[in-house]
Amino acid sequence: MNGYQLEGIYSPIATAFDENGALALDELRWNVRRWNEAELAGFVVMGSNGEFPHLTDEEQVMITRAVAEEVSADKYLVAGTGTLSTESTVSRTQRAAEAGADAAMVLPPYYYRPGMGARELEEHYVHVAEESPIPIILYNIPQFAAVELDVSLVAKLSHHPNILGLKDSGGNVMQMGRCVSDSADEFSVMAGSAGYLLPAMTMGCSGGVVALANIAPGECVRLYNLIRAGQWEEAMQLQEQVLLLVHAVTIRYGISGLKAAMDLLGYYGGNPRPPLLPLGPEGRKEIEDLLDDFGLL
Amino acid sequence: MNGYQLEGIYSPIATAFDENGALALDELRWNVRRWNEAELAGFVVMGSNGEFPHLTDEEQVMITRAVAEEVSADKYLVAGTGTLSTESTVSRTQRAAEAGADAAMVLPPYYYRPGMGARELEEHYVHVAEESPIPIILYNIPQFAAVELDVSLVAKLSHHPNILGLKDSGGNVMQMGRCVSDSADEFSVMAGSAGYLLPAMTMGCSGGVVALANIAPGECVRLYNLIRAGQWEEAMQLQEQVLLLVHAVTIRYGISGLKAAMDLLGYYGGNPRPPLLPLGPEGRKEIEDLLDDFGLL
Amino acid sequence: MNGYQLEGIYSPIATAFDENGALALDELRWNVRRWNEAELAGFVVMGSNGEFPHLTDEEQVMITRAVAEEVSADKYLVAGTGTLSTESTVSRTQRAAEAGADAAMVLPPYYYRPGMGARELEEHYVHVAEESPIPIILYNIPQFAAVELDVSLVAKLSHHPNILGLKDSGGNVMQMGRCVSDSADEFSVMAGSAGYLLPAMTMGCSGGVVALANIAPGECVRLYNLIRAGQWEEAMQLQEQVLLLVHAVTIRYGISGLKAAMDLLGYYGGNPRPPLLPLGPEGRKEIEDLLDDFGLL
Amino acid sequence: MNGYQLEGIYSPIATAFDENGALALDELRWNVRRWNEAELAGFVVMGSNGEFPHLTDEEQVMITRAVAEEVSADKYLVAGTGTLSTESTVSRTQRAAEAGADAAMVLPPYYYRPGMGARELEEHYVHVAEESPIPIILYNIPQFAAVELDVSLVAKLSHHPNILGLKDSGGNVMQMGRCVSDSADEFSVMAGSAGYLLPAMTMGCSGGVVALANIAPGECVRLYNLIRAGQWEEAMQLQEQVLLLVHAVTIRYGISGLKAAMDLLGYYGGNPRPPLLPLGPEGRKEIEDLLDDFGLL
Repeated sequence: MNGYQLEGIYSPIATAFDENGALALDELRWNVRRWNEAELAGFVVMGSNGEFPHLTDEEQVMITRAVAEEVSADKYLVAGTGTLSTESTVSRTQRAAEAGADAAMVLPPYYYRPGMGARELEEHYVHVAEESPIPIILYNIPQFAAVELDVSLVAKLSHHPNILGLKDSGGNVMQMGRCVSDSADEFSVMAGSAGYLLPAMTMGCSGGVVALANIAPGECVRLYNLIRAGQWEEAMQLQEQVLLLVHAVTIRYGISGLKAAMDLLGYYGGNPRPPLLPLGPEGRKEIEDLLDDFGLL
Repeated sequence: MNGYQLEGIYSPIATAFDENGALALDELRWNVRRWNEAELAGFVVMGSNGEFPHLTDEEQVMITRAVAEEVSADKYLVAGTGTLSTESTVSRTQRAAEAGADAAMVLPPYYYRPGMGARELEEHYVHVAEESPIPIILYNIPQFAAVELDVSLVAKLSHHPNILGLKDSGGNVMQMGRCVSDSADEFSVMAGSAGYLLPAMTMGCSGGVVALANIAPGECVRLYNLIRAGQWEEAMQLQEQVLLLVHAVTIRYGISGLKAAMDLLGYYGGNPRPPLLPLGPEGRKEIEDLLDDFGLL
Repeated sequence: MNGYQLEGIYSPIATAFDENGALALDELRWNVRRWNEAELAGFVVMGSNGEFPHLTDEEQVMITRAVAEEVSADKYLVAGTGTLSTESTVSRTQRAAEAGADAAMVLPPYYYRPGMGARELEEHYVHVAEESPIPIILYNIPQFAAVELDVSLVAKLSHHPNILGLKDSGGNVMQMGRCVSDSADEFSVMAGSAGYLLPAMTMGCSGGVVALANIAPGECVRLYNLIRAGQWEEAMQLQEQVLLLVHAVTIRYGISGLKAAMDLLGYYGGNPRPPLLPLGPEGRKEIEDLLDDFGLL
Repeated sequence: MNGYQLEGIYSPIATAFDENGALALDELRWNVRRWNEAELAGFVVMGSNGEFPHLTDEEQVMITRAVAEEVSADKYLVAGTGTLSTESTVSRTQRAAEAGADAAMVLPPYYYRPGMGARELEEHYVHVAEESPIPIILYNIPQFAAVELDVSLVAKLSHHPNILGLKDSGGNVMQMGRCVSDSADEFSVMAGSAGYLLPAMTMGCSGGVVALANIAPGECVRLYNLIRAGQWEEAMQLQEQVLLLVHAVTIRYGISGLKAAMDLLGYYGGNPRPPLLPLGPEGRKEIEDLLDDFGLL
């Protein structure tokens, strides 16, 4: 293990596409340079938010390479590399490492769901961790990949020298707390949304990988810093605002909402790739009003 | 509205049965006198933990009356009165009020689940609130009553003058936070388990209705007080221990586990009524070891 | 065992309420006399369709007694008696027997869902069967009572001398087929809806307990007879029409839809009890058009 | 539309891997030549059973080409081409057509599940159908791809000239029946398992795409022929046996069980690719006994 500790705020960055749907690497680089200015601990490319299911293998390498070139030296670069098979997860992870990723975030294989027992999942993750030149971060997101990483599996895998931590997007803080308690000391559990960063950190999470950092990285970092500094009252107030923003933008409207908000805030947002559809005018108006209320415009 | 504010720790107390399965009111009274010594804000009779589905209407009145006679003057008495029909919820609530309950906790009707739309649920709760001589507390517990009270319904009902608050046992702190944000100012949201009391209170909950208070009322109150006093580090440490205890006793073994723990800790526990089955010897041994580790024995 | 075999079409009859929501026994009796004219094998009172969750214990006895007095001699009378506790299921079953029911249909206790393991459910049903003076029919309806009776439990219970059969409303014909294969020879499996009577009977079901028999008993019996007579082509054509009717009336609009259709067809329908709400004018119009299309008006 | 009608039995064939996990095309060809002897209507390559999630794009082309070369002239060749994005589904479909597939079977994109509304799914399928040189077959399999194709969507898409039919593996025969009723006349609905072929065909399905045809193609065809010939009694008897076999081999043990059975029956089975694990010795013994009981060994 390289001794890296996951902590702070990571941004699972959106992938930029041009109006024809082609990869817009310059726009992505431009976004990254701007995000670099915030005190983020790092970036995640090809997370759920980065539309990994809509990217070819080659595009994934191009994105990793481009972001690796732009990311400031103090920031950690994680690549989402989980696929539906063990072998392709390994090869995608190896290519991400070559392209400059510092670590790989791996969701469980989720197609043959009834067949994904404890033994299948454990063997899968151990094999990926053994074959990967970079550390692995477990990724629990049952609302999309409809397989749950349970506490006992996480606890077992946490002792593997090449498994660094868990991003838990399930939203169940009891489960996060139990993962913290039952896992190895150096293993980190990260909240999967800014919508519950504070409660998750009271359960022992060491930070978050949060979509909101695409549009409000400063606020996310400020919330994290308030918590770390023990300024709980201020943290609670900011958390309440952040929760409403998260709900309105990313939960209600998903990636389309996030990208619309990015456009409104001077980042390059653009449209998602199909089957996701761009936000209609009413949705855009609603997001605009909301960003305005929140003082972000 | 009587102006009462739900806050602090309420104990949803277990119902005592003798070895033949009959109501053991003397033992219940004895437990209540002992629980009175803790700084609990109140008790809930006939909650999920009190096995309301296993009690006749008459037994429910007897329990409410007995506890009302024993409860110390500074404590609030809530009765679970939700049934599967609007009319019987009303009559059960009225009888609970006559028997001495200060408020009624009402879960949604959950048999005709696909038919429980927003309109059905709203009309149900409004009617119950109108007909009830005592304030109503909404009760969300989708893991048992498989119908979810969503944020917009809670927000709407929160403005009713005879609806006091929500006990949310769903475990989703984002939902609790949104209920706090979107509901009327004087409306309280209470965490449904000590396993997430701290994170829930960082989201604006004003306390909890927590099964653990049956066996460790002092620890629950201490956790609440640490949070209220802003002693976050100590609160986080205690929360971690409390979470493990909650998981081991009440989540893993349910009411049977809680009753076994009560017996071990000098309360009257006894057995649940069928279809629930008493804990076997291995389960009892495990709970004993755990209470010992936690320093409760 | 009394040697009775469940087969043919049973009607889970709706309960009649007057405009104030009181039990309308005369209207119910009138309906039964009319239903008697069809070649139904029997009636089920206090099934899901009979709004058992909205009825007091006393009303249930009154309904059973009234229907027992009206039902023609060749028809079997089943009473739904399942509650959330073992003891009250037993007492309700005994009272149903005294009031004239020939058998009792018992759904699983469904409140403490995570606690309803194979052992709890088996002990519950065996105890109820032992204590019941009349035979028991298992009742699987996971869309309402969110606990599933699985094949191995059904197979085990099928050998009990006082357990007669299963009404399966889950809609999974593979599960029905496996229950038929794995259960005792004299045990019957009944389809829970006319919407899949033919496919269920090709899997070995011996008939159905079907809500549609409230409004179209003749059609239901005709479908059953066509299948029994091996007139498969005619059966398939009728099944297709029946499926559309079932979907439009009972699946889409539930009990409110069924009662509206009863009113339109000259039965006494009336309104359901709250929290269920009566159908609005658009829904009524839609059902009227549909019954007209089907030639029932 | 080319006027092809889906009917009869199609086999979603397993993909052969050698002991190092590499594609074993010669063994696959050998299996196909043997399967050619049965009166199957066609084959599906890269269905769920063919482990499409474990295959690279190149391997998928190689498999399609190899099977296209071996398949006898009277048989139809379908390729599973659904991915998580619209664009890659289109390109995979085009390559399958070039490699010799007669049609493409397309499951819904299932990663961003909460975002897959009616509009997203409709636009996805229409775009794929427009861009595809070969007809499209819709594929509903919610137990794996956790998104449901509902009746109204299927009905709408059924009118597209390049959409041929639906394979429904959800097991809900009412849904199949409604899809048959509500869809265009020339649109076919196929049962997704031999475990419910007879009941599905009584609801208007015109055949099945059934995993069991990998190990017992003759029995599957015989069941289909009995149904078509109106020999219902014999069909019911065979269906009961087939259901037990399907449950024991493919539902209980999945692809690993199917491949073990193939080995036992003289086909080339081999192991699945990870994360799926090969069957252990006890599982193999159980399957051997079962095939023996069924008279297949």
